[in-house]
Amino acid sequence: MQKTIRPSTRSLTINSCRLQQTIAELATIGALPTGGIRRLAFSDDDIRARAWVQEHMAAAGMTVTIDAAGNLIGQYPGQYPDAPALATGSHLDSVPDGGIYDGTYGVLAGLEVVRTLYDHDIQLNHPIEVIVFADEEGTMIGSKAMGGKALLNLERYYSTGANNPIENNLKRLGGDWEQLPSARRDPRSLVAFVELHIEQGPVLEATGNTIGLVTGVVGQRRYVITVTGQASHAGTTPMSMRQDALVAASQLVLAIHRIGCLKDNAMTGEQVATVGMLTPTPNVANTVPGHVEMVVGMRDLSNDCLDQMEAMLVTAMDDIAKGTQTRIQIHPTLRNEPVLVNSHIYNTIASVSNCLGLKSQSLPSRASHDAQNMASVTDMGMIFVPSRSGLSHASAEYTAPEQCAQGANVLLHTLMQLDQHYRCRLEAG
Amino acid sequence: MQKTIRPSTRSLTINSCRLQQTIAELATIGALPTGGIRRLAFSDDDIRARAWVQEHMAAAGMTVTIDAAGNLIGQYPGQYPDAPALATGSHLDSVPDGGIYDGTYGVLAGLEVVRTLYDHDIQLNHPIEVIVFADEEGTMIGSKAMGGKALLNLERYYSTGANNPIENNLKRLGGDWEQLPSARRDPRSLVAFVELHIEQGPVLEATGNTIGLVTGVVGQRRYVITVTGQASHAGTTPMSMRQDALVAASQLVLAIHRIGCLKDNAMTGEQVATVGMLTPTPNVANTVPGHVEMVVGMRDLSNDCLDQMEAMLVTAMDDIAKGTQTRIQIHPTLRNEPVLVNSHIYNTIASVSNCLGLKSQSLPSRASHDAQNMASVTDMGMIFVPSRSGLSHASAEYTAPEQCAQGANVLLHTLMQLDQHYRCRLEAG
Repeated sequence: MQKTIRPSTRSLTINSCRLQQTIAELATIGALPTGGIRRLAFSDDDIRARAWVQEHMAAAGMTVTIDAAGNLIGQYPGQYPDAPALATGSHLDSVPDGGIYDGTYGVLAGLEVVRTLYDHDIQLNHPIEVIVFADEEGTMIGSKAMGGKALLNLERYYSTGANNPIENNLKRLGGDWEQLPSARRDPRSLVAFVELHIEQGPVLEATGNTIGLVTGVVGQRRYVITVTGQASHAGTTPMSMRQDALVAASQLVLAIHRIGCLKDNAMTGEQVATVGMLTPTPNVANTVPGHVEMVVGMRDLSNDCLDQMEAMLVTAMDDIAKGTQTRIQIHPTLRNEPVLVNSHIYNTIASVSNCLGLKSQSLPSRASHDAQNMASVTDMGMIFVPSRSGLSHASAEYTAPEQCAQGANVLLHTLMQLDQHYRCRLEAG
Repeated sequence: MQKTIRPSTRSLTINSCRLQQTIAELATIGALPTGGIRRLAFSDDDIRARAWVQEHMAAAGMTVTIDAAGNLIGQYPGQYPDAPALATGSHLDSVPDGGIYDGTYGVLAGLEVVRTLYDHDIQLNHPIEVIVFADEEGTMIGSKAMGGKALLNLERYYSTGANNPIENNLKRLGGDWEQLPSARRDPRSLVAFVELHIEQGPVLEATGNTIGLVTGVVGQRRYVITVTGQASHAGTTPMSMRQDALVAASQLVLAIHRIGCLKDNAMTGEQVATVGMLTPTPNVANTVPGHVEMVVGMRDLSNDCLDQMEAMLVTAMDDIAKGTQTRIQIHPTLRNEPVLVNSHIYNTIASVSNCLGLKSQSLPSRASHDAQNMASVTDMGMIFVPSRSGLSHASAEYTAPEQCAQGANVLLHTLMQLDQHYRCRLEAG
């Protein structure tokens, strides 16, 4: 049953009511009394949510497969049946007290795009894939395996029980640990991957823009810093004889904050630097703290910037250690490289937003996403929609129905534009 | 059996070997493998230590009584049997991981002074009392009751079991909760109280002085300060949109440190200001801290200074709250008034140290002591000896045998000088 090819038009729109309905239905799986969800990767609720999506994919004319990494892949056929796919997707698993949009919105908007094509009897040149990645919130095993990247953090406690090995968990999703390398996508099987996601930050809301044109996923460096002074009696030790680790740590917190705010050389003022954890010892009222452990995170799109931030951090540490008679040591614990989006896809999203009359702006993604792993095997792009108050990983996570629809329409027309763009390759082939 | 009165002479000295031996013997009661002691108030070890001291008091010609507050009082008779007493003493109870000198040294040096008088058949004009105060490390019930002061912290967990009421604990020591007010000393029953104690701080060691001429026990104010910002994603929240409670708290830690170091108006540079506890929430790597609770302590001999410090703290809080878009609140949780020593006793200790050829210096006591409660009913003075590395409330607490002997000799001659000084009252009476 061959379907008609129709040109991409500005008039084609997704069904906003249906999109809202699917978001609401999926929100019942793992629902918390707070209005949020707890749908941990590999849990029964995760499996139920995947089955629900699988059923609706099939009903929209998609063929569904599960790869060795537990990724659920729905493929909607294109005019050229053997052509590489245009892919979109995100994840359905959540953090323990998560919101109903993080990840899920990207999957359901992808489903809605396919339903819209199906409703209008439209097939593009390329097959369209909607991918539900496995365990985004934990190991990222789904997108990492698909991108052929190294796996970390496999020792984490899964929702299915402490120390339950990844092998068993993958099996629950229909994956196969022994065959994991087979999940890596042959780059020739994809032309592009575009992920639609809520911003999870406050920028779009603050600027009043509807669409975020993501420039890339920031690189991330994390350090544990220890400050060692000398614990002593908070009464009997004169100020001049103290080696107060908390005073030194406080100086460092402020230095790190300044590094995050600086515009200088490689630093654009877009970088962030945070002390999220700080633990003094012994942490009792009557004792000058002798030791502090802190966790520092830095993120930026440019490795040059991250290098400069790291150098400034080390200089600040040395200066503060001297000034406070403490010993300060740094231990890198995480290094994720920045991933830039494909410029053609970026420009396409910008132009589609413009054509749809939607205000847009550039911004980096400062959170991790499956898309960053897909960039290893295909051209990658990302679209953000606003998050109310910038909240995510929380029950209060919210994106208005109209904003959800606007994002899905941008995804629809971006995929249609990209279909035209990559068509020449098919014809050349 | 009337004993001969002999004049106080520079040649009379305590028996250093015997003092060391008693310190070593008492250190076996509640001994920890670390070399320290755990002799919690009201515990079996506390009772054993008191019994040991009681026995040796009796052997040195003292009459021993226990008052309603559980204080053990050994009295060595004077020439005027009905005269008010010259008193010394300290405590035998320890913190959970304490050292062998804190408190115990003052009691055993008092015992050694009496033994020395007894050995030389000397009776002073006034009776000498050596007092073992009950529960100095906790409720301070012994010295507070003797000084007629209000009791606090009675709800603390006693070593004899959680929630074991103070009534039961007092009974174990031979006290009587019902009769507690009877423990208040009639001011006419005492002429002076002098406490000898290890410094528990690093000042004497640093300056190379042997004797600390204590000017008073500092007043203490304690506050819980809460900083409320907004927890947000450490990746997705740009620096300019953060309300980082830890950045605000760090500014406050540094402001408090500066207040402790300032010399200005009422502030002599002798005050101390400490943030001992600081707890960020949620305290995870990936989140900008939304809340911080901190405990601030300030100590000085002068209430004017403490008032000025408090005013500066409040000003700093307001400035920082404005600059960081956070809310900062302060809750006072403790206020102990400063207690000054009697100037005649201070001068006597200074002159005795000088006559014995011992280098001395003035310093405040920035820790609490039983002496501060005794100041409510009699003239009070305090003598400090050095603490190695300023350590106390720790197994490593140490004062050299020679230093212990020097302090005990200063106590002996101070009591003999005071005996002469207050004699005129007896003759007037």
